[in-house]
Amino acid sequence: MNPQDVMNDEWYMRLALQLAAGAAGQTGINPVVGCVIVKDGRILGMGAHLRRGGDHAEIHALRMAGGEAAGATAYVTLEPCSHYGKTPPCAKRLIEAGVIRVVAAAKDPNPLVSGNGLAMLEGAGIEVEAGILEQEATQQNEAFNHYIVHHTPFITLKTASTLDGRIASRTGDSRWVTGEAAREYVHTLRHRHQGIMVGIQTVIADDPSLTTRLDVPGLDPVPVIVDSMLRIPEDARLLERPGAILLSTYQAPPDKIKRLEDRGHRVLLTGFGPHVDLEEAMRLLGEREIASVLLEGGGKLNGSMLEARLIHKCVLFFAPKIIGGAGAPGNFDFAGFEKMGDAIVLDRLKVEQMGQDVCISGYPRYGQAEEEPAGTE
Amino acid sequence: MNPQDVMNDEWYMRLALQLAAGAAGQTGINPVVGCVIVKDGRILGMGAHLRRGGDHAEIHALRMAGGEAAGATAYVTLEPCSHYGKTPPCAKRLIEAGVIRVVAAAKDPNPLVSGNGLAMLEGAGIEVEAGILEQEATQQNEAFNHYIVHHTPFITLKTASTLDGRIASRTGDSRWVTGEAAREYVHTLRHRHQGIMVGIQTVIADDPSLTTRLDVPGLDPVPVIVDSMLRIPEDARLLERPGAILLSTYQAPPDKIKRLEDRGHRVLLTGFGPHVDLEEAMRLLGEREIASVLLEGGGKLNGSMLEARLIHKCVLFFAPKIIGGAGAPGNFDFAGFEKMGDAIVLDRLKVEQMGQDVCISGYPRYGQAEEEPAGTE
Repeated sequence: MNPQDVMNDEWYMRLALQLAAGAAGQTGINPVVGCVIVKDGRILGMGAHLRRGGDHAEIHALRMAGGEAAGATAYVTLEPCSHYGKTPPCAKRLIEAGVIRVVAAAKDPNPLVSGNGLAMLEGAGIEVEAGILEQEATQQNEAFNHYIVHHTPFITLKTASTLDGRIASRTGDSRWVTGEAAREYVHTLRHRHQGIMVGIQTVIADDPSLTTRLDVPGLDPVPVIVDSMLRIPEDARLLERPGAILLSTYQAPPDKIKRLEDRGHRVLLTGFGPHVDLEEAMRLLGEREIASVLLEGGGKLNGSMLEARLIHKCVLFFAPKIIGGAGAPGNFDFAGFEKMGDAIVLDRLKVEQMGQDVCISGYPRYGQAEEEPAGTE
Repeated sequence: MNPQDVMNDEWYMRLALQLAAGAAGQTGINPVVGCVIVKDGRILGMGAHLRRGGDHAEIHALRMAGGEAAGATAYVTLEPCSHYGKTPPCAKRLIEAGVIRVVAAAKDPNPLVSGNGLAMLEGAGIEVEAGILEQEATQQNEAFNHYIVHHTPFITLKTASTLDGRIASRTGDSRWVTGEAAREYVHTLRHRHQGIMVGIQTVIADDPSLTTRLDVPGLDPVPVIVDSMLRIPEDARLLERPGAILLSTYQAPPDKIKRLEDRGHRVLLTGFGPHVDLEEAMRLLGEREIASVLLEGGGKLNGSMLEARLIHKCVLFFAPKIIGGAGAPGNFDFAGFEKMGDAIVLDRLKVEQMGQDVCISGYPRYGQAEEEPAGTE
């Protein structure tokens, strides 16, 4: 018997979380939210926020409930909003519908409004309970929660390496490191991120499409290419459809910038080079409303992003293989630390077998470096 | 409810396997074996083979049963022996005791006698059932099973590396890569192996003791040092107690060989150098009745042993850390393969979290190399 299958507040909240999880990747810079409305032992309405600018989860659920929500309990994975934006505040709509109890998982992570929605409900005499499955709800929106506070994208690094940490053989062969199941999961991650980031070396070497290829249709993330000299071949696959973002420097040739922009791409310049100022680049991406990026870099870009403390989550696939070769490229290529005790540690480690491979994921904890990069959060 | 807790043949066999597992590391080149004798719903005797030259599991169990084993069932993890060796054959003893049913997990892996014990029992009218939890029993004696057929030690490689495959920082700092739980498990592995193998570089750099240090007393494995020029410092900790084995070449200085042998160490010479012939060395270790070796080498020795296809099992610890540094030593240092498809794959992969670390273990499957090393099994 599954203890998770006992009906209680958590049971309904878990359903609401599942509704929200279904919409992961399709709400842009908005959070995913689910809502379930229950009265007298019966679900009357279910809803999820499906796209930016579309109705919030509560509105969909109230609509499904028709006029019957009076006296009901509403389970929401995120505190209902209290401000008049593109839609009227959900807290107000719940009050008007006659809901008598609201159970919320997470509070609004925006410090400016956090708690206001619940306060509005309580002010109207509604019983409010917050914090049910809060951890799950918070993790579900980890990218949104970061973006709303820092205005820079949440960066998820993905690598696929052998057990000796190599992403390719010494000759550069990398087809394939991991198996079908891991690769299918990576495409699922692509669907769930707004941007996908690679270095120009990868574009020149592999000419990748970086699209989402699954057994079902998926959403393609926006390509984000780190290309300090704007060396990208103009017939690259990534430029076939408009909308690519090129992170470059003032060393980029102006005529090439113009040609790319005329084709609908965006070239964002960060300083005078020779390297892209990655921190500044993250701010520019944030301004362009890119809230989440999947980093599929080579060892060099991965190492630079890690050194700049810009990676928030690591999803590291390990194939059960040993390839060898001193010059074979590694998953992280950077100067590194002198002391083992200074290594960057992954917190909240998760280990899963995925087909034949192992997936180790976690959140880098950056130590107190002697030279703290300017402007680090 | 644990479905493994239902009393049946497997339940008794699992108990017998546990008795055997308890003796892991203390039976030398002998297998571990457990025996449980049951009659009328009651355990009458339990036994395990505890040391080479000592009584077999069945004898201990029959002794505990006193004269009451007539009509009983005997559960044994390994087929009872049928030959007159240091002790009379256990099959005969079971027959004499009046046992009416014998349940065995694994057959004798020695192809010369496999099945003889069970046949002797059947010939005496005893009901015999073989193959109950055979896989568990076979794995329990994986080193013995290899040795009895090949007469060379079963080699278990252990490494502790970061997520970028480094066993130390670029400055050589490796204290500590993994945490307490992983290190405690490594000392448990030392107890369970007859030999522990390192390269001379490790001896010179770290002067390790390679003893088994646990919260309880453990058995120390015999140090096996790969030292082609016999450069080992004569005041090395590994030489403090007699019994170390040095794998060297005919380039080793004869006077130093004599001094080491006078102190009770053994110097085994394999060819004219400059490198130790590892394959020949394994045969020499086998002749000295070393049936299992824990390889705790640096990247170089690990790589050489892997290239020579001499590693039978890999136990790879990964600390949830990223250390970086292009020159930081890796867990496997060898020429490597050109094609990802030629990488050495680990079979029967097992993934466990151990404290803060991840342990990935498996059995290397060596491909059909173009140049097959001479004499490979």
